[in-house]
Amino acid sequence: MFKKGLSKRERQKELQTLLADDPFLTDEELAERFNVSVQTIRLDRMELKIPELRERIKAVAQENYSKVRAIGVKEIVGELVDLELGKRGISILETTEDMTFEKTKIVRGDFIFAQANSLAIAVIDANVALTGVANIKYKSPVFAGQKLVAKAEVTRVRGNKQFVFVRVYEKQREVFRGKFILVSLDGGVNV
Amino acid sequence: MFKKGLSKRERQKELQTLLADDPFLTDEELAERFNVSVQTIRLDRMELKIPELRERIKAVAQENYSKVRAIGVKEIVGELVDLELGKRGISILETTEDMTFEKTKIVRGDFIFAQANSLAIAVIDANVALTGVANIKYKSPVFAGQKLVAKAEVTRVRGNKQFVFVRVYEKQREVFRGKFILVSLDGGVNV
Repeated sequence: MFKKGLSKRERQKELQTLLADDPFLTDEELAERFNVSVQTIRLDRMELKIPELRERIKAVAQENYSKVRAIGVKEIVGELVDLELGKRGISILETTEDMTFEKTKIVRGDFIFAQANSLAIAVIDANVALTGVANIKYKSPVFAGQKLVAKAEVTRVRGNKQFVFVRVYEKQREVFRGKFILVSLDGGVNV
Repeated sequence: MFKKGLSKRERQKELQTLLADDPFLTDEELAERFNVSVQTIRLDRMELKIPELRERIKAVAQENYSKVRAIGVKEIVGELVDLELGKRGISILETTEDMTFEKTKIVRGDFIFAQANSLAIAVIDANVALTGVANIKYKSPVFAGQKLVAKAEVTRVRGNKQFVFVRVYEKQREVFRGKFILVSLDGGVNV
């Protein structure tokens, strides 16, 4: 957190630097860093003509979608903000109220699975790939409004099998991890 | 399959017997058994006043929903056609075109996961339960229109952890299996 008493100009300068470094900081995270209200951050962004998080994510994601091979772009759960095909990728999912269990307000496990699974498929350098095996662990509950950053890495390729390790974070907290074995179907549908 | 040449009356009698035994047979499956067209089966059902599959599933599911504790009824993916709380349960998911990958027309893995995962939670005899760990295997691709029957069984309870084994079938073919460890949160949200 920054020390209090930054002038507006100082804060806006720092804000630009921070967002240049990590364009995916939420208004809430920024407000916390500067110890100001979310509304103040919104006004800062408006003055600086910095679009809202969703728009920033989409802008970055746009250039990655053209690289994806094994899955339809609309089928990726979350926005693909980084992709090195056949190696690694990052997606961001902004969780919402309608993804939660009614009772607990905790985000449903299947949404997090869908983010991780679709990212695992997106990083694969093949025409078509399907999930064969997944060993997954939910480490900590996620609540609506929290931003999930999924990081996938291809750890091994053996024949038509690709091993992908996916970790999902909320801020610095790891909330999910999964090992996926994907089967590329470029030779036909025989899983 | 029945031998050809059954009279309409014989067929309709057999059809009633079959559906009494397994109310979840699709019109397609029945048509195949009797070696007649799906349209013929539909007409038979209309004459016999047997509602369509979706209605039959819903009617059976209705009585199970009141027993469910750990998940909201609307949050169960598929219809819950059998439930012995704390022990076992069965759900049926009729797959549709919008659940598939555009490229391959294969049903997305996350839908099957969601069916299995939500059924695993539904069978748990606790106020609230979350998925902790899942080890899953997709054994065979599923295509739109195929009816998935998920069968869950609680295999072990240790403290606040419940082990649930889920198998998903399309006709006699096992398409998915998963071992889930669920954590009941009746003591509070500390996973």
